[in-house]
Amino acid sequence: MTMNVVGASICDEELIVQGEARDIQLPNTEHVSQISVDIGGSLAKVVYFSRRAGTKGGRLNFRKFETEKIDDCIEFIRRLLEESRAHRPGHELVIKATGGGAHLYYDRFRDTLGVNIEREDEMDCLITGLNFLITEIPFEVFTYSETDPMCFEETPADKFPYMLVNIGSGVSILKVTSATTFERISGTSLGGGTLWGLLSLLTGAKTFDEMLEASQEGDNRNVDMLVGDIYGTDYSKIGLKSTTIASSMGKVFKKNVDKRQFRPQDISRSLLYMVSNNIGQIAYLNAQAHGLDRIYFGGCFIRGHPITMNTLSYAINFWSKGSIKALFLRHEGYLGAVGAFMKHRSSRRNSRSFTLTESLTQKLAATELTDVESTIAQDTLDVDAVDAADSD
Amino acid sequence: MTMNVVGASICDEELIVQGEARDIQLPNTEHVSQISVDIGGSLAKVVYFSRRAGTKGGRLNFRKFETEKIDDCIEFIRRLLEESRAHRPGHELVIKATGGGAHLYYDRFRDTLGVNIEREDEMDCLITGLNFLITEIPFEVFTYSETDPMCFEETPADKFPYMLVNIGSGVSILKVTSATTFERISGTSLGGGTLWGLLSLLTGAKTFDEMLEASQEGDNRNVDMLVGDIYGTDYSKIGLKSTTIASSMGKVFKKNVDKRQFRPQDISRSLLYMVSNNIGQIAYLNAQAHGLDRIYFGGCFIRGHPITMNTLSYAINFWSKGSIKALFLRHEGYLGAVGAFMKHRSSRRNSRSFTLTESLTQKLAATELTDVESTIAQDTLDVDAVDAADSD
Repeated sequence: MTMNVVGASICDEELIVQGEARDIQLPNTEHVSQISVDIGGSLAKVVYFSRRAGTKGGRLNFRKFETEKIDDCIEFIRRLLEESRAHRPGHELVIKATGGGAHLYYDRFRDTLGVNIEREDEMDCLITGLNFLITEIPFEVFTYSETDPMCFEETPADKFPYMLVNIGSGVSILKVTSATTFERISGTSLGGGTLWGLLSLLTGAKTFDEMLEASQEGDNRNVDMLVGDIYGTDYSKIGLKSTTIASSMGKVFKKNVDKRQFRPQDISRSLLYMVSNNIGQIAYLNAQAHGLDRIYFGGCFIRGHPITMNTLSYAINFWSKGSIKALFLRHEGYLGAVGAFMKHRSSRRNSRSFTLTESLTQKLAATELTDVESTIAQDTLDVDAVDAADSD
Repeated sequence: MTMNVVGASICDEELIVQGEARDIQLPNTEHVSQISVDIGGSLAKVVYFSRRAGTKGGRLNFRKFETEKIDDCIEFIRRLLEESRAHRPGHELVIKATGGGAHLYYDRFRDTLGVNIEREDEMDCLITGLNFLITEIPFEVFTYSETDPMCFEETPADKFPYMLVNIGSGVSILKVTSATTFERISGTSLGGGTLWGLLSLLTGAKTFDEMLEASQEGDNRNVDMLVGDIYGTDYSKIGLKSTTIASSMGKVFKKNVDKRQFRPQDISRSLLYMVSNNIGQIAYLNAQAHGLDRIYFGGCFIRGHPITMNTLSYAINFWSKGSIKALFLRHEGYLGAVGAFMKHRSSRRNSRSFTLTESLTQKLAATELTDVESTIAQDTLDVDAVDAADSD
C-alpha cells in the first residue's frame, strides 16, 4: 500500500481503558493494514493503521498494554492480523517492532503470530516518531503553564537541534541535530518505574492512574522538609524561599512517629514532585551543556497529567531562568511506536504528506483546553490517504 | 584564649554512639573552652575544644544529635558550659551556631543556656570548615575505590577552584573559587532525608545505621529493572550494558505480585544506589558546567559507608570519563560545625597553625585501611596549642 496521506485529524471518541479492551471491533468499513509495536520495560505500545473502505481515509490507532501481560498484546495483534487476513487473503503483513521487548520477546511474537517481525532500533524510532509528529501533525506540540495549560506551538523553521527527554520506566536523553542524526547523551534510572514501584509499595495503589489521582489530593508539605521547616524563614541570602523543598520525604524519618500518620495522597504528591523535578533538573543541565534551548518531553510517564507537566515546566524554567522551553506532545507515549510504524517502507516514503484536516482545527478550537488530560488521551488519529491502493 | 595550635592528631579511641551518650565525662585533666553547633534538618553537629590542663594540648570533639531531639543537644551543651564554668568561674563563653536550626532554635538555645549565641552563615561555615580541614589536617582527604578504599591525598598546590557537594537531609552544591569566595550553584531535594524517609517507611528500619547495614546484604537486581531485563542482552549500540540499572525500583510495580516478596535489604540497596547515583550525576553535570575537576563530598549522608562512596565515585568517574575526581573527608559530617568553630575570633586568626603530629602519621600507617568506616568514625581530633593561655 501507499500511505500517501493528506489529511490527519485527532479523534477523541471512545477511550479504551488501558489493558482492559481485549476485543477489537473495527467498524465494518475499516480494515487493518499496518502494525507496529514498541515494547518497553513496563508498557507495550501498539500503533496500527485502519483503512476506511471505499475512501482514501483511515486512522492511526494507539493502544497500550502492560509488558508484564505481553500475551494480551500478542493476542490483540493476532486479532488485528486475523481481521486483516479476512479482508485481504494471501496478503502477508510485516510487524515493525522496537524497544527492548522487540528483542526479549522476539521469538514469542514470531512463533505465536507466524509473521515476519522486523526489529528497529529504539532510539532511531523515538526520533523518527517525534520528527514525524513535530513536522506533520498540527496541534501536536504544546507548552504548559497553569494559566495556559495547552498552548500549541507552530513548528519552528529551525527544528534542529533539540533535546528529547523520553520518560518511560527509566529516562533517556537524546540530542537531535538533524532528521537523521542524534545521540543518546544521558539518562537516569529515576523514572516512571521508580515512581510506580515506590507508590505501589507505599500507598497500595493498583494503577498509575490511581496514583496520579491521589497525588492531586495530596499536600507534599506533610512529608517533605521545606527550607522553612529548617530555618523557620527564607534562606534569602542564597535565594531559597521558605517554601522550597529542601528534602523530599525529609519529614518522615523520625523515630517516635507513627508511620501510618503519613497519608498516601501526600506521599504520592511528594514523590511525583521528586521524580519530575529531578528529571527536569537533569534535563536542564544536559541542555545547558549541549547548548540546546528546546526540550521535548515524551514517554508514558507524563500522560497529560497537569501536575507532572507543571513540575517539569517549572523546573526547566527555574533552572534555565526562562531561556529553555519545555515542550509536550499529545502522542507523548507513542514516539517509538509511531517511529517504528514510519519504518514501514511505504509510510516512510510518504510521511511528509500527513497534514491537518479543517475539521480538526474547528474541533480543537471548540475544546475546553483546560481539560488537558482528556484532550491528550485520544487513541486515534484520522488520516486521509491520497492513494488508497493497499498493495506494494 | 589563643588557640595557636601546632599539632593535630586524630584519635580513634572510644566511639560514642550517636545520640545515646548523654553524659559527658571529661578527664579531670581537661576542660572545655570553645563550642560550636551546626543544626541541620535532621542532625545537629557539635564541635568543642577541650584543653588539657598543664599542657599546651587539647582536642576537638565531635558529637551528633538528632535535630528532632534538639533538647538533648541543648542539655549536652549546658553540661559543657557547666564544666567550663566550674573550671574558670566568671569566664563567659560564646556559642557559635550555624545551619537552619541556628535560626529556628535561636530563642530556645539562648534562653536555656543563658549565653550569647552568635549565628554564622551556613554556606560560609561549610567552606570555612572544609578549607580548614583540607589545608591543615593531613590524612583528612582521600579518594575511594574498591581496590584502594582510602587513598589519602596531598593538599594540591592549587586548591581552588573546587566544588563541594554537601549531602545532609537535602543537598547543596557550592563552587569555591578562593578561601573566601564561593557560590551555591545548585542543589537537590533528593538527599539523605529522602533515603532515610523512604527506607523507614519501606523497611521498618529504625536508624540510618540499620539501613546501611541492610543495604550491605541486599541485591538491588531483585527490585531494579536492568537493561538486561528489558532487552535480554546489552543495548550495545548506545553503550548500555545488560547490568546497567534502567529503572530504579522498576521491577516492583506489577499488579499480581505480592508486595511482601520484596526484601528490605534489596530495597535498601536499590534506594542507596538511586540516591547516590543521582547525586553523583547532578554533581558531575554541575562540575562540567563550571569547569571544575575536583569534587569534595561532605555531609552526614556518607558516614564513611563504602557502598555510598563507591557509588558516588563510580558515578563521577563514569560520567566524567575519569576526568573529575571524587574526594571524601574523614570529618565529612562536621564541615559546618568546624567552620562555625573557626569563627571564634582567636581560632580563626590562628587556624593555619594546625599541623600534623608525628604520632598521627605513625598511627595511620599502622591502621588497616580497608576498614574505612571505623577509621573515619573517630570523634576527636587531638591538637596541641602553642599558647596555653586561656584568656586573650
